[in-house]
Amino acid sequence: MPMTAAELAAYLGGELVGDAKANIRGVGSLAGAKPGDLVYVESEKHLPAALASPASAVLVGSGVFVRDKTIIRVAHPKWAFARAAALLQPEPPLLAGQHPTAVIHPTARLGENVAVGALAVIEENVRIGRGCQLGAGCVVGAQVEMGEECVLFARVTLYRNVRLGNRVRIHSGAVIGSDGFGYVQVEGRYEKFPQRGTVIIEDDVEIGANSTIERGALDETWIGRGTKLDNLVHLAHNVRIGRDCVIAAQTGISGSVGIGDRVSFGGQVGIADHCRIEDDAVLGAQCGVPSHKTIRRGQTVWGTPARPLAEFKKFYPLVARLPELAARLAALEGKRAKKSERVKES
Amino acid sequence: MPMTAAELAAYLGGELVGDAKANIRGVGSLAGAKPGDLVYVESEKHLPAALASPASAVLVGSGVFVRDKTIIRVAHPKWAFARAAALLQPEPPLLAGQHPTAVIHPTARLGENVAVGALAVIEENVRIGRGCQLGAGCVVGAQVEMGEECVLFARVTLYRNVRLGNRVRIHSGAVIGSDGFGYVQVEGRYEKFPQRGTVIIEDDVEIGANSTIERGALDETWIGRGTKLDNLVHLAHNVRIGRDCVIAAQTGISGSVGIGDRVSFGGQVGIADHCRIEDDAVLGAQCGVPSHKTIRRGQTVWGTPARPLAEFKKFYPLVARLPELAARLAALEGKRAKKSERVKES
Amino acid sequence: MPMTAAELAAYLGGELVGDAKANIRGVGSLAGAKPGDLVYVESEKHLPAALASPASAVLVGSGVFVRDKTIIRVAHPKWAFARAAALLQPEPPLLAGQHPTAVIHPTARLGENVAVGALAVIEENVRIGRGCQLGAGCVVGAQVEMGEECVLFARVTLYRNVRLGNRVRIHSGAVIGSDGFGYVQVEGRYEKFPQRGTVIIEDDVEIGANSTIERGALDETWIGRGTKLDNLVHLAHNVRIGRDCVIAAQTGISGSVGIGDRVSFGGQVGIADHCRIEDDAVLGAQCGVPSHKTIRRGQTVWGTPARPLAEFKKFYPLVARLPELAARLAALEGKRAKKSERVKES
Repeated sequence: MPMTAAELAAYLGGELVGDAKANIRGVGSLAGAKPGDLVYVESEKHLPAALASPASAVLVGSGVFVRDKTIIRVAHPKWAFARAAALLQPEPPLLAGQHPTAVIHPTARLGENVAVGALAVIEENVRIGRGCQLGAGCVVGAQVEMGEECVLFARVTLYRNVRLGNRVRIHSGAVIGSDGFGYVQVEGRYEKFPQRGTVIIEDDVEIGANSTIERGALDETWIGRGTKLDNLVHLAHNVRIGRDCVIAAQTGISGSVGIGDRVSFGGQVGIADHCRIEDDAVLGAQCGVPSHKTIRRGQTVWGTPARPLAEFKKFYPLVARLPELAARLAALEGKRAKKSERVKES
Repeated sequence: MPMTAAELAAYLGGELVGDAKANIRGVGSLAGAKPGDLVYVESEKHLPAALASPASAVLVGSGVFVRDKTIIRVAHPKWAFARAAALLQPEPPLLAGQHPTAVIHPTARLGENVAVGALAVIEENVRIGRGCQLGAGCVVGAQVEMGEECVLFARVTLYRNVRLGNRVRIHSGAVIGSDGFGYVQVEGRYEKFPQRGTVIIEDDVEIGANSTIERGALDETWIGRGTKLDNLVHLAHNVRIGRDCVIAAQTGISGSVGIGDRVSFGGQVGIADHCRIEDDAVLGAQCGVPSHKTIRRGQTVWGTPARPLAEFKKFYPLVARLPELAARLAALEGKRAKKSERVKES
Repeated sequence: MPMTAAELAAYLGGELVGDAKANIRGVGSLAGAKPGDLVYVESEKHLPAALASPASAVLVGSGVFVRDKTIIRVAHPKWAFARAAALLQPEPPLLAGQHPTAVIHPTARLGENVAVGALAVIEENVRIGRGCQLGAGCVVGAQVEMGEECVLFARVTLYRNVRLGNRVRIHSGAVIGSDGFGYVQVEGRYEKFPQRGTVIIEDDVEIGANSTIERGALDETWIGRGTKLDNLVHLAHNVRIGRDCVIAAQTGISGSVGIGDRVSFGGQVGIADHCRIEDDAVLGAQCGVPSHKTIRRGQTVWGTPARPLAEFKKFYPLVARLPELAARLAALEGKRAKKSERVKES
């Protein structure tokens, strides 16, 4: 759906400077843009690359003035770019209709315009809301309930009873609702502790490829509205996550951890059981939080065991300076030893 | 299958105090219990919550005395609770019968009461023992042998020749028997080293969602009886694990590592190749063991490179105190410097 | 395909010493070899085990002389062993023909001798080159292009548009081309940033089970010729990897990281966004590289934040010696304090 730069500026609520009739057909990166593309810059340092690119228009922030290039000035260039991309090159639907090879239990209830891919399996008493798309090879367990306009890419597994809100997106290979890792140790053996709870995922959550979300042992594992999980993330049983959190790849969160709203996790973070992570906390990549600890509201932490970043920055560089500190200590000891010798000698 | 508190106490070998006729219909958590539920407490601190809950009976340990609540006193409340849960709310079978869309090779031999889900694939010469359940979309490679009463949840993959004992449970997305990561470096390129071995999994092993177990290069990768793996665990080729170990999520164990019995791994542990982890060792979350190291019998280790916990606790807190140590060192140097100056001045 | 020791030596370009007519039927490990097997030794310390084994012949390096055992002397015993294994026990084809239950879109174009397993799904406009094998349950998205002789084991997912070269091997559960983890934060919520790029995988790449490769946001994620990824590896959007790299299990590489040729990654390594890892670098297991850092050509690094190994080895052992350093510091202070007291007292 191509449009003129002027039309696009109007749609984005931005101010056009340059060729109002420039034909915009798509979006591009600074490195890969072609004529007809829109690009964006967020920082001054990328501006020369944008101006030099063959892109037909550049989204820039307020206060940016350039010549010889069509620009659209907006408050938030990256967000305007994302909106423009959705308008100019809307994501094609994953699929349409119900493939004849899909295996849909007669008791399942599917809303209007639900698309089901080849060889997907929908078990008994499942309810799927209007406009959902289920990719090829998905397995949706008995009694699962999904809201509207969810997208399950190919080969997603939902165990029985799992509940999804609206517009939940789940990538291939993700497994939602498998047993929690709970056992009772009896005479040296591990006997299974019941894993009978479920998983509740609120609206607008996105879950990355091959991530795993365990069902609660007796209650629920819970993911709040708008929270985003990257690939290969692990959430254990009874974890409760608030709204608008982001969790980068390969992070693991142990059983019964409670997480507030707007918390950010770097990649490969590990949170041990029963921790509490308060609103707006930031956990640096690879950090580790030991059992039962609390990370306070708004705190940024780093390292294992995780400590406030300001503190971490004070002590951690000294680790690499230990040889120097040890040498200085030895020097002091040497002077003292020499002096003692002198004293003894005198 | 509801029963009276007295019947349940008799089944569990416990001592009933309170309303012998209380009707028990299920199990609950302290936070989520409803009337008719059984709950349990393991430590005194949770007793008030249990007494305040609407649960109809509470499993408690010996030496606990309460009023105004029906209790069942047992030696091991958590274990009694797990047994009660299995009795009151038995896990429904994953599925029953053989779905007509399953693709079962005519040479495969399935025992009595084997259930096979929709669109599962069972390749040639597979043997599956009595009472196994294979979920939708599983792929069982040629020559696989499975014992009795195994449960494969949806979308499990077993590569050819893999052998499972009895009552093995494998969660969705797990891959058993893929090639080990072995190459020969020849003139700067990596050429494939043969990965022709297999995987042997003994009785009562449970494997979490999306975990990966590589086949041996020439011999076997081996998991001993009763060992439990959480989600996203990686076992490389030729790893040998003993009995009754627990391995928490996202732990990775490199090639040819040998592990004894009753070893516990926290989450995100990394063991490099050819290590030996002796019986009853405990490896703290995120710890790392370098190549060819041995962790001694019964030792608890922490950190990277992993060290005995007692030792770790002595030195690690000092890392955060490095600024103080450095300041004290500088103070000593300063005094000495001043003194030297005074000496020179005098 | 059994052969004599002399024939095998001739094939491998090696020098036979011993029983030229010894019948060689397969390959074995030092621990598991049977009569008729070929084994190999790379270091002198394993030679006694090889001589004691029932193997019928031993591949050894130049300069090794033994009695009472048939040996084949070659320049590179491990590589010769891999070649012998491929000759004596060629890997059986994963499958043959196109299974009637595979769902192949009529617009897909498959080359000669392409094998497609049961219940695999091939979507519209896919092109698959000669001799490729696609295991049971694979899902190949629209517009995917694959070169020749690729092997996709069971249950691999390729999202739309992904491009593979020749002889690419991908293990079960791997997901190639899922969305990158990119959002725009707008008034506290995360809005989706377009993930419209793709993934390009060159010839001779192997990808382990349950690994995840995200598509580029606007351009490509790229894996160079001959690079090998182990299981559960994560590559984020816009990562570019050169040729002949090896990446061990559970390593995660964040967005827009650029990696040169012949780089080696240990297991569980984490690379933050926009790093540059130059040719021939070596990253130790579990190390972490912070955002925007460069690891120089040929450098070996360790720890988090990653530092050159030589430096790391100097300072890291001192961490465990901190109690001793602190005690020595306190001793110095104590002497000084006592002396001050003496001074005051005097």
